[in-house]
Amino acid sequence: MSGNRFGHVFSFTTFGESHGPAIGCIVDGVPSQIPLKEEDIQFWLEKRKPGTSRFTTQRKEPDEVRILSGVFEGVTTGTPIGLEIINQDQRSKDYGEIKDKFRPGHADYTYWEKYGIRDYRGGGRSSARETAMRVAAGAVARKVLGEAIDIKGYLVQVGPHKIDRSRFDWNEIDNNPFFCPDPVAAKEWEDYLDEIRKEGSSIGAVLEIVARGVPVGWGQPVYDKLDADLAKAMMSINAVKGVEIGDGFEAASLTGVENADEIRMGEDGKPVFLSNHAGGVLGGISSGQDVVVRVAIKPTSSILVERQTIDTQGNECNLITKGRHDPCVGIRGVPVAEAMMACVLADHMMLHRAQQG
Amino acid sequence: MSGNRFGHVFSFTTFGESHGPAIGCIVDGVPSQIPLKEEDIQFWLEKRKPGTSRFTTQRKEPDEVRILSGVFEGVTTGTPIGLEIINQDQRSKDYGEIKDKFRPGHADYTYWEKYGIRDYRGGGRSSARETAMRVAAGAVARKVLGEAIDIKGYLVQVGPHKIDRSRFDWNEIDNNPFFCPDPVAAKEWEDYLDEIRKEGSSIGAVLEIVARGVPVGWGQPVYDKLDADLAKAMMSINAVKGVEIGDGFEAASLTGVENADEIRMGEDGKPVFLSNHAGGVLGGISSGQDVVVRVAIKPTSSILVERQTIDTQGNECNLITKGRHDPCVGIRGVPVAEAMMACVLADHMMLHRAQQG
Amino acid sequence: MSGNRFGHVFSFTTFGESHGPAIGCIVDGVPSQIPLKEEDIQFWLEKRKPGTSRFTTQRKEPDEVRILSGVFEGVTTGTPIGLEIINQDQRSKDYGEIKDKFRPGHADYTYWEKYGIRDYRGGGRSSARETAMRVAAGAVARKVLGEAIDIKGYLVQVGPHKIDRSRFDWNEIDNNPFFCPDPVAAKEWEDYLDEIRKEGSSIGAVLEIVARGVPVGWGQPVYDKLDADLAKAMMSINAVKGVEIGDGFEAASLTGVENADEIRMGEDGKPVFLSNHAGGVLGGISSGQDVVVRVAIKPTSSILVERQTIDTQGNECNLITKGRHDPCVGIRGVPVAEAMMACVLADHMMLHRAQQG
Amino acid sequence: MSGNRFGHVFSFTTFGESHGPAIGCIVDGVPSQIPLKEEDIQFWLEKRKPGTSRFTTQRKEPDEVRILSGVFEGVTTGTPIGLEIINQDQRSKDYGEIKDKFRPGHADYTYWEKYGIRDYRGGGRSSARETAMRVAAGAVARKVLGEAIDIKGYLVQVGPHKIDRSRFDWNEIDNNPFFCPDPVAAKEWEDYLDEIRKEGSSIGAVLEIVARGVPVGWGQPVYDKLDADLAKAMMSINAVKGVEIGDGFEAASLTGVENADEIRMGEDGKPVFLSNHAGGVLGGISSGQDVVVRVAIKPTSSILVERQTIDTQGNECNLITKGRHDPCVGIRGVPVAEAMMACVLADHMMLHRAQQG
Repeated sequence: MSGNRFGHVFSFTTFGESHGPAIGCIVDGVPSQIPLKEEDIQFWLEKRKPGTSRFTTQRKEPDEVRILSGVFEGVTTGTPIGLEIINQDQRSKDYGEIKDKFRPGHADYTYWEKYGIRDYRGGGRSSARETAMRVAAGAVARKVLGEAIDIKGYLVQVGPHKIDRSRFDWNEIDNNPFFCPDPVAAKEWEDYLDEIRKEGSSIGAVLEIVARGVPVGWGQPVYDKLDADLAKAMMSINAVKGVEIGDGFEAASLTGVENADEIRMGEDGKPVFLSNHAGGVLGGISSGQDVVVRVAIKPTSSILVERQTIDTQGNECNLITKGRHDPCVGIRGVPVAEAMMACVLADHMMLHRAQQG
Repeated sequence: MSGNRFGHVFSFTTFGESHGPAIGCIVDGVPSQIPLKEEDIQFWLEKRKPGTSRFTTQRKEPDEVRILSGVFEGVTTGTPIGLEIINQDQRSKDYGEIKDKFRPGHADYTYWEKYGIRDYRGGGRSSARETAMRVAAGAVARKVLGEAIDIKGYLVQVGPHKIDRSRFDWNEIDNNPFFCPDPVAAKEWEDYLDEIRKEGSSIGAVLEIVARGVPVGWGQPVYDKLDADLAKAMMSINAVKGVEIGDGFEAASLTGVENADEIRMGEDGKPVFLSNHAGGVLGGISSGQDVVVRVAIKPTSSILVERQTIDTQGNECNLITKGRHDPCVGIRGVPVAEAMMACVLADHMMLHRAQQG
Repeated sequence: MSGNRFGHVFSFTTFGESHGPAIGCIVDGVPSQIPLKEEDIQFWLEKRKPGTSRFTTQRKEPDEVRILSGVFEGVTTGTPIGLEIINQDQRSKDYGEIKDKFRPGHADYTYWEKYGIRDYRGGGRSSARETAMRVAAGAVARKVLGEAIDIKGYLVQVGPHKIDRSRFDWNEIDNNPFFCPDPVAAKEWEDYLDEIRKEGSSIGAVLEIVARGVPVGWGQPVYDKLDADLAKAMMSINAVKGVEIGDGFEAASLTGVENADEIRMGEDGKPVFLSNHAGGVLGGISSGQDVVVRVAIKPTSSILVERQTIDTQGNECNLITKGRHDPCVGIRGVPVAEAMMACVLADHMMLHRAQQG
Repeated sequence: MSGNRFGHVFSFTTFGESHGPAIGCIVDGVPSQIPLKEEDIQFWLEKRKPGTSRFTTQRKEPDEVRILSGVFEGVTTGTPIGLEIINQDQRSKDYGEIKDKFRPGHADYTYWEKYGIRDYRGGGRSSARETAMRVAAGAVARKVLGEAIDIKGYLVQVGPHKIDRSRFDWNEIDNNPFFCPDPVAAKEWEDYLDEIRKEGSSIGAVLEIVARGVPVGWGQPVYDKLDADLAKAMMSINAVKGVEIGDGFEAASLTGVENADEIRMGEDGKPVFLSNHAGGVLGGISSGQDVVVRVAIKPTSSILVERQTIDTQGNECNLITKGRHDPCVGIRGVPVAEAMMACVLADHMMLHRAQQG
């Protein structure tokens, strides 16, 4: 246990800071003979890449991934897969001012106190740069899961503005810069975020990830339950402050009568649930329904508005975090959260297999 | 990785079903020379024990814990601590009807599909009975943490009824059967729950756990962050559907300006945060502020109202879950969630120590 | 990681001291629907039980195991299996003299220095008593492995006296108190050990464990190789000082020409190795040949001959370790080493399964 | 658990094949503020590097390591340390002949059966190339351990030729191409190995690693004992077939009277052991004496002498493994085994710290 590995049987271990020469990861436990090429990973990295719209940071991170091992003649060999992205847009000069001041809401203060040293250039290890490798590992996890399982994320709330579920359209998600399934809300968010951006502020968001096609039976009660591992996976992502499975906090207001997902037999002779308050997990084991996770993301801590803080010497001071920031880091959180769900599912698929005779 | 162990360096492994001869756990990694006696554990088990008011199940579980190893002459020896509770109130006859029918909202269906066999007596391993051992392990964790760290939980919402934070009183928490810090809300909940109980239904709840005295520096970024492990710990508890750190889902509606926990220097020369939106965790590392976690609990799935389901043969049927059920399982969730927080903190205290020169 | 758990997916965690009220273990990760009853475990415990001949300690340990969970109606349920043995022959009065003196060769000194406290009654946690639970876990592992895999151990050397491989007879192993496959050697050892016993001394031994029927493919290179995990398993047993796979240290004297296990095709169309210098493991993966492990056991440290030592106050003193000791602890090591091999194999069988599509 | 990570709190995860673009590793759990530069690692890589004498393979592997993360301004930051070596001497054309034939003694057959695919170029993942990263991780571990702990390895046997312990000289070890502490033996080995090399054969060896300065108290009984983890570490190295702690297999021939490491008080008021049969480990915990491990290495499996084997189609055939091979792979095993000991010790130092109040 040293903090930079995720997963049990399907696992990945990452390294890298925002301003080092490279970031990378080792994906381990991947079964052999799975087709995998750099394009499979690059596809998902593009989705996370900054600078694709004016609503994400304008930093340039080409994020070109390279497979260094574990793949031979186009398929996995069962050995660890080394992945690497060379860092390119390292404008270290930008970060002089925050060298000694702790940015409120960032990990500057806690890293300083914990480690007694801090790579102050752009957040170092605590930078969202690290999440590129989660996306890369998630791309491998998707290949392990196969095409029968579909994982899709989207934003359901930006600041106080929620989507209208009656307008939910899977096809809209990739049609706007917010991964928003509600075209009307997407339009509203555009105006709203422009305003936030002009204020030099930022805003939080809620995103939802759905996995369809997960069979019944995945999960390892009672401490490595599927939902427990999902909760850990999501909460480990930068800026995440809350995780819900199924109805989540709404379940607190429900009666047992309302909350019961009743079961009938389908025409195909398989059980059919009449509702999905549970979010596809019962007793920590997938039920065969859609697995539904929601994640709360706090507003980007880097803002162009002056805030009060202290420096490493214990002096009080004020700070404006200059630079190119995401007005709503929740947007780019979607592919990251998708990737983490893919990794958790691949891991639990394999754990489940281990116990089958 | 096999599902029934929690923790990295401070860990516990549990066994036991609701209707087997005993439940037990092994707490491992406990430092030596810590005073520990059965009363220290029993104290917390009493808090979780059913039947203490009409708002919890009337099952009788004396829950008398016995220390079987790891303690010598009143102090821990650094060897594993074996704990055991003999099950006493095993009315197996009650459970005949649910032998073949899947109770909606319970893990009956998923256990059946995953394992192909199910101890149908009272939920077997998926019963909340298992949480007694979490409380026992948590009691040991509290001793490891020492008295400088205080962990306290309480209910902040029962069904749609929330506490009024302006009436928050730490001293009220143990004065009512709901661990409610707001005496007015406690009164309302009493009437509300009587009604729910009479209907044969149940209701959800939200509980909050606060750890005071946690020093800055605990947490292992980027995958074993303190909040990530807390999220896993909480989500692994039966009936939990959501976890929040600090502002949680409220953070989605905040701007970066509002969300920034500004820092000043205190009169004692130590940093003082002017707010705690972060809930005491920054970048996955404790900040020295109170660690604040909120947990959503779904309504008890066992209700006296008929619901539609199927049986193990795939026949559609209806089911009333007779028996002695908690109308609001969230109440007894408080000591369980407290215990899990204690375990996570003890674990991270030790992990942090490992890295100190 | 806290020291008292063994295994990855199939795992067991143990607790208990020689003079506490009970010892126990939790076997986790066991697949469901495997027939298991207490007799299945008791059978192997009898093999390890002291007092079965004059060549083992005369302590009385009935070692009656009880299954507390994880088995329902005669088969495993996939939930953790709690096992317990009540300690009965706790003659604490015997141990007064060693309360403050460190027995040479024992863990008294290191436990004292590490933990600052020591359960001096009979070795506490470092007592061979703990190995009863390894045997119990191993019995479960054998059921998981199934009957196609046969694990058998025997002594090949007692003190300087080795068996003659030309007289090797599988059927002799259970015909003498030494698990000796060579009837002539067994006779020699009898006289030799009587002499050792009369001197109040003890003697070392070498045992060999063979697993037949292990299919090709088990093992997780490059750090969790099958042989690496076997080495750890064996070296973790009390009194073990050396581990060999296949030719072991003899391989140092071989040339590459001699050491090559050449391969031909058998009449059944399967590969046949012409020798087994490798001991059934190539590159950390089972080859389909017999897995052969040898283990060196040091002489029992408790002897009736006076030795020089110090006490907890740092005073020099002499010590005779009175009591009922095994003259050759290697004998009772056989079922323990067998059990550890069974656990490693069950674990790797499941790990291998996890990666199969 | 996926096979390519070693260690608990101080851990490293590696990737890379002999003929891929690069090999690398992530060292995790390293405390912050430890000075570390590439030269610190390169120093030990040079020791392992092929081609330094005619007794090792003539392949050219410059093995220039690059630190990609985790170090800032010359000291560690507490974040994961990414290390990478670009592979340069990849003569893929050499390996055409072994593409379809299984080299006896190599992992070709087992990888093929396990994974159904095999990177046949030079052994792929099972190549000794992988050990470069163990050496790199070990270099970091040495820095974590600090200068008070000295780890030194040497050969004590090549083929049937052992050193004479009476001629043991620490200063000779680096004076000959065999890491041999006995100058007379070194001379003999030179002639002997020339002969072996001319025959196109290879030979095994025994190496010994000693750690001086390890304090009393490291080790996590009863399954993660210091010696158990050392055994696993050593057995996981390519070509290793046996591991001994202290007297190892010799202990089988000793009586309890002989084997007892008696204790006296030294002039400095500290305990002094009169012998070290135990090899510095008692009950799985370091005793403060030198930790002594011996490792048996089989002869290089790649030889220029024809051996019988089969191909992937199940056809019988003969094979000569052309190429540039180590006549005695045990020589280059010394820095690898040293590195593994350093990693185990660093890990256990940190685990021990975790439990100190």
